[in-house]
Amino acid sequence: MPDRPPSAEPEPPSFGAGSATEDSVIQAILRDRHRGGPTPSLDVGDDVAVLPSGEAVGADMLIEGVHWDARSSAEDVGYKAVMVNASDLGATGATPRWLTLSLALPDPPPMGWVTGFARGLHAACAALDLRLIGGDTTRSPGPIVVSISMGGPLAHGRAVRRSGGAAGDQLYVTGGLGQAAAGFFGADPSAEALRRPRPPIALGLALAAAPAVHAMMDVSDGLSRDLSRLCAASGLGAEVWPEALPLGRSVPAGPDGLAWATAWGDDYALLVAISPEWGAEAQALAAALGAPLSHIGQLHAGSGLRFRGTDVPQPIFDHFSAPPASPPC
Amino acid sequence: MPDRPPSAEPEPPSFGAGSATEDSVIQAILRDRHRGGPTPSLDVGDDVAVLPSGEAVGADMLIEGVHWDARSSAEDVGYKAVMVNASDLGATGATPRWLTLSLALPDPPPMGWVTGFARGLHAACAALDLRLIGGDTTRSPGPIVVSISMGGPLAHGRAVRRSGGAAGDQLYVTGGLGQAAAGFFGADPSAEALRRPRPPIALGLALAAAPAVHAMMDVSDGLSRDLSRLCAASGLGAEVWPEALPLGRSVPAGPDGLAWATAWGDDYALLVAISPEWGAEAQALAAALGAPLSHIGQLHAGSGLRFRGTDVPQPIFDHFSAPPASPPC
Repeated sequence: MPDRPPSAEPEPPSFGAGSATEDSVIQAILRDRHRGGPTPSLDVGDDVAVLPSGEAVGADMLIEGVHWDARSSAEDVGYKAVMVNASDLGATGATPRWLTLSLALPDPPPMGWVTGFARGLHAACAALDLRLIGGDTTRSPGPIVVSISMGGPLAHGRAVRRSGGAAGDQLYVTGGLGQAAAGFFGADPSAEALRRPRPPIALGLALAAAPAVHAMMDVSDGLSRDLSRLCAASGLGAEVWPEALPLGRSVPAGPDGLAWATAWGDDYALLVAISPEWGAEAQALAAALGAPLSHIGQLHAGSGLRFRGTDVPQPIFDHFSAPPASPPC
Repeated sequence: MPDRPPSAEPEPPSFGAGSATEDSVIQAILRDRHRGGPTPSLDVGDDVAVLPSGEAVGADMLIEGVHWDARSSAEDVGYKAVMVNASDLGATGATPRWLTLSLALPDPPPMGWVTGFARGLHAACAALDLRLIGGDTTRSPGPIVVSISMGGPLAHGRAVRRSGGAAGDQLYVTGGLGQAAAGFFGADPSAEALRRPRPPIALGLALAAAPAVHAMMDVSDGLSRDLSRLCAASGLGAEVWPEALPLGRSVPAGPDGLAWATAWGDDYALLVAISPEWGAEAQALAAALGAPLSHIGQLHAGSGLRFRGTDVPQPIFDHFSAPPASPPC
């Protein structure tokens, strides 16, 4: 049950927006979107949309050389492709149940890679108890492309939007920020967080039951960028306390670590705006589910994002640019 | 209402299978598919799957240089991407209502192309009254990739499968076979059918209401290949009468035209197996909907596909091989 009425006009549909470049692509796509006829869906302006049937649906595409490199095995790619999509659903309060897979492969198809990919995909499906229901395969004259669409029902009949934040809400985030960057830049040789993300899906579903949880999203593009989106969607500003950020275990203290933790992405943590009187209860619930929530700041009237005592780290990753060749920090 | 009980064990999920190569990729992906836990979906072993909520879902991916070339404008690509997905739904008896779009673009993104693509996409959405509800954009270091997932409810509560054919069923197909090949090979300079397919979706939905319509699918990979799949799924054989095939207006008579009409694909015609006593009624319905059905053969006990008086044309298109540089006929 939503704790506030949905807006009359549906918000723009959800796109995994990143940079100004991505935003301009998305705007070009949405400018003259067909809106006539019966409305077949509720757009939620978040990482997933919710259909009238109560089914939530999202989509994410991973591309060789953009979203993974030689450090990731085929199995890692299959596993991660499922998890990044499931993260979007969980952060909206929807239980991932099914996926379609469209897969583009070089000619001839690298069958060893396909077998490993399938193993990782099925391991993630088994971990989340979700089912591959269809898809498409085709030849790619370029990189391998993994495109997944995933859906499932709202766990509590309620989609938690980015736009639901209220002034005075406490901001919480789950742990391990920057650990994916630590893997990418060599500080964590296992690169486990980068290769095998484990989004706190059960926590997202549990939190969606609480009306005091006003806004929620996953932190796939870095806290700076994603919290800015939550602020913009909610029409509010935010203050973050850098010393309160729950850093990954391989993330150094100081400005380097702060940049990894807030300006890189790929961590698939949960970012939540919670009414102050329910903060302690949310933390107890999160601890019980093994995904502790750290209180990292608050929403306030106004706009913009501030980091107390320091500048807001600028994004160091962009889906429309090649990643930096060497660590930027 | 299905005219026969669904099989107890769900069939394998739907993949846009083409060649032996594609089949081996699909088998590698499905071999150890997770099947435990509650079944979140009904696999239909067809071009789309049907979820317990009654939502049908399919997915199709189009790649620059594989599925389109310089003869197609950006607008054509956007239009076609919607139509090929809608064709899959309509051929199962599901009304297309929503889609997600994942789009991979070079860096920097070709904004003129994106704008044209969006125009074509929205024109197709408006024609079918369906809504873009979400998606993803990313950088491609290779070709442009358009990946769509599309869904909607069963129009009559019934999914018409490939596997429903019965011995003695009459085989019908909608017109224009080979016209896409005629466009590709220059016999139709406008290449209209290739660039702007118009699948007979309303007819698919109307036919799905009739229990006498036993099996249905779209002919996206050529009649030889697609009818072979319908036969295999139904455990039957088929005889086709080549002289009865409804050729596209630019398709020559003789063996060349036959190959274009049956062994190329991209026509998005509807292939239907109908109980003999209802054939005339189906044809009247189809004529009324402006998508006439031609009676092209029949299903029989046994297996395999025969063309009366000639060899079965072998596929001349494969999603895992480059298209022929010059007309094969």
